[in-house]
Amino acid sequence: MTLILGLSGSLRRGSFNGRLLAAAAALLPADARLEIFDGLASLPPYSEDTPAPAAVDRLRGAIAGADAVLIATPEYNASIPGQLKNALDWASRPFPDNALRGRPVAVIGASTGLFGAVWVQAELRTVLGAIGADVLNADLPVGLADEAFDEDEMLADAGLRDRLADIVEQLLRRVPRSGGINETSPTAAPSRSPAAR
Amino acid sequence: MTLILGLSGSLRRGSFNGRLLAAAAALLPADARLEIFDGLASLPPYSEDTPAPAAVDRLRGAIAGADAVLIATPEYNASIPGQLKNALDWASRPFPDNALRGRPVAVIGASTGLFGAVWVQAELRTVLGAIGADVLNADLPVGLADEAFDEDEMLADAGLRDRLADIVEQLLRRVPRSGGINETSPTAAPSRSPAAR
Repeated sequence: MTLILGLSGSLRRGSFNGRLLAAAAALLPADARLEIFDGLASLPPYSEDTPAPAAVDRLRGAIAGADAVLIATPEYNASIPGQLKNALDWASRPFPDNALRGRPVAVIGASTGLFGAVWVQAELRTVLGAIGADVLNADLPVGLADEAFDEDEMLADAGLRDRLADIVEQLLRRVPRSGGINETSPTAAPSRSPAAR
Repeated sequence: MTLILGLSGSLRRGSFNGRLLAAAAALLPADARLEIFDGLASLPPYSEDTPAPAAVDRLRGAIAGADAVLIATPEYNASIPGQLKNALDWASRPFPDNALRGRPVAVIGASTGLFGAVWVQAELRTVLGAIGADVLNADLPVGLADEAFDEDEMLADAGLRDRLADIVEQLLRRVPRSGGINETSPTAAPSRSPAAR
């Protein structure tokens, strides 16, 4: 069973990006599942003076235990929501042997504006690349998010739905075969001990 | 007396960016002073579900009570430190009549790497522009920060020191005359009631 960890950049209950992750989960094949990380709001502000508390260990463990990560995010003031970036700042340490290194990650996003959080997705790919993740070079700009979902909570627009399915498929293809190293990745995947999974 | 509010993107004690703000303060004329906001670490993660707590009111009040804002920041994973972005996400609400709107803001930065946090400064200017601040189009890239300060805690490099002095001077020139509107600003400054100061 392939496990994808979902991170939502919005902490609001019932957020469009939480719904977008659920739509992605509905497109997964039977041998894969998506789990949304629910501890984002409890991470303290990153500081070099602060030893990583249990909430940070939980985030790092959830990433290390997943085969891939899918991030869905709104755009706040033309960039990354602060707490999502704070989570990635914690996850990026210790550098370079962090939980994200070499791990397949895709970024999608929904916003109520016209442009579907397209700038924040680009900035997130830059950040994830700097962290050393195996970042998919693709985005999913879901604009006018309050009208984007149909009654089945799937994306109403066929083009967006196909693009989401394609991103999910690409992400799964990046996952290394069990126990192996992702040889197609520009950065080597970390060795994953049973304890870390 | 002109008041500049200083925000440091690093929460670490004795951070290079805190020292950079202190160096900026030392370059101010006698009729201006800089106060560093000390409540950044206590802001909760921004969420539309969370009513602004007292820590957020304090941040908004400190911005509204200042004539200008100076942000000094490191670069985390090629972008804005999460908690600094979180503070700006809170400060940007309610939009568009937030405390930063029309207020003169400059961005500087120090990092231990070669490039002096130059990308994060650009991204911050984009964010501040989206928020509606009167953003100076200038940066101060202090690289190799652990060697950047002399024994007087001033920037050792004459070129950087002059550039910092120039940014501080430009920032002060943007401050509207007392009680007036900043007529050179592309966005009108908010009216400031005595209670807000």
